[in-house]
Amino acid sequence: MRKNFGAKALLFPMPVLIIGTYDKDGNPDAMNAAWGGISDDTQISICLSPTHKTVDNLKLKGAFTVSVGDAKHVTECDYVGIVSGHKDADKFSKAGFHATKSPNVDAPLIDELPFALECKVISYDDKTCRLVGEIVNVTADESVLTDGKIDITKLCPIIYNPSEHTYHSIGGKVGNAFSDGKKIS
Amino acid sequence: MRKNFGAKALLFPMPVLIIGTYDKDGNPDAMNAAWGGISDDTQISICLSPTHKTVDNLKLKGAFTVSVGDAKHVTECDYVGIVSGHKDADKFSKAGFHATKSPNVDAPLIDELPFALECKVISYDDKTCRLVGEIVNVTADESVLTDGKIDITKLCPIIYNPSEHTYHSIGGKVGNAFSDGKKIS
Repeated sequence: MRKNFGAKALLFPMPVLIIGTYDKDGNPDAMNAAWGGISDDTQISICLSPTHKTVDNLKLKGAFTVSVGDAKHVTECDYVGIVSGHKDADKFSKAGFHATKSPNVDAPLIDELPFALECKVISYDDKTCRLVGEIVNVTADESVLTDGKIDITKLCPIIYNPSEHTYHSIGGKVGNAFSDGKKIS
Repeated sequence: MRKNFGAKALLFPMPVLIIGTYDKDGNPDAMNAAWGGISDDTQISICLSPTHKTVDNLKLKGAFTVSVGDAKHVTECDYVGIVSGHKDADKFSKAGFHATKSPNVDAPLIDELPFALECKVISYDDKTCRLVGEIVNVTADESVLTDGKIDITKLCPIIYNPSEHTYHSIGGKVGNAFSDGKKIS
């Protein structure tokens, strides 16, 4: 028997996207967003209310980074989602994050988070709150690579569970994509 | 030291979205998509090439469902991502899926997958491949509920790993959202 929950933003899994930007004074900022995902082969789309300082920043600089929250930094990633950049301009450093300017876009990479997308702003719409970014480069620290590939078991990305407002780790491998389905003829 | 991977569609986690539609003859179809996510408080956006039968169907019916791939049905979910609905009109039943018409939209729910969004088409753009859907209802089988809430550990949603083309399960809880960050003052 199915139960109805009405019109809600529930999906499993949801990502923990840590968006990095520079403000007008060159100070790095970071925020946490779950409403987004890949929207084309070199594009990411994220729903961001125009009230966020991040939105002011990415309009100004035309760029942002998207780091993936990981199991080592649950507290830090949650913190930048709780505190407003408008209210605390120092939240980035209070989180314990350190910034290195992306070599490809005018936005900060977060030294503590090993995986990130470097993005240029394609568009931002105040009415729909939709940010579309062109992924100009994917960057990952050597510590999360195996044989030159990003190793999800080293990266340990976290998952947002919107039903219970919790974060989860990644579990074990359960199958091979574009492969397991071939068992069905 | 960071390594560059260029402009690629890599993100962690990615969802396994199983999109259900009816064709012009009322036959259920399903496909697997990873490029999408929540895009507003009652909205989901998914990137779908216009070559998919699913796109023909959702244009015709103005509706679709999005079930979440789960650990019990890895093979079935992968199968509907490998086989084209244009080439095999019977792929839904070959996958072992059974359809029940959604009470809210003109699209099939998949009996075997316990969690789904019932969606009306807001827009589909052939050029950008962007499907935007209004989530009119969230439905979940009682078997994945605990105290009336969706229990992610019962649902066992799977995660697509775009780096190695594998599926992973959900791991254990590692934190509380909107809460853990309060430890940082």
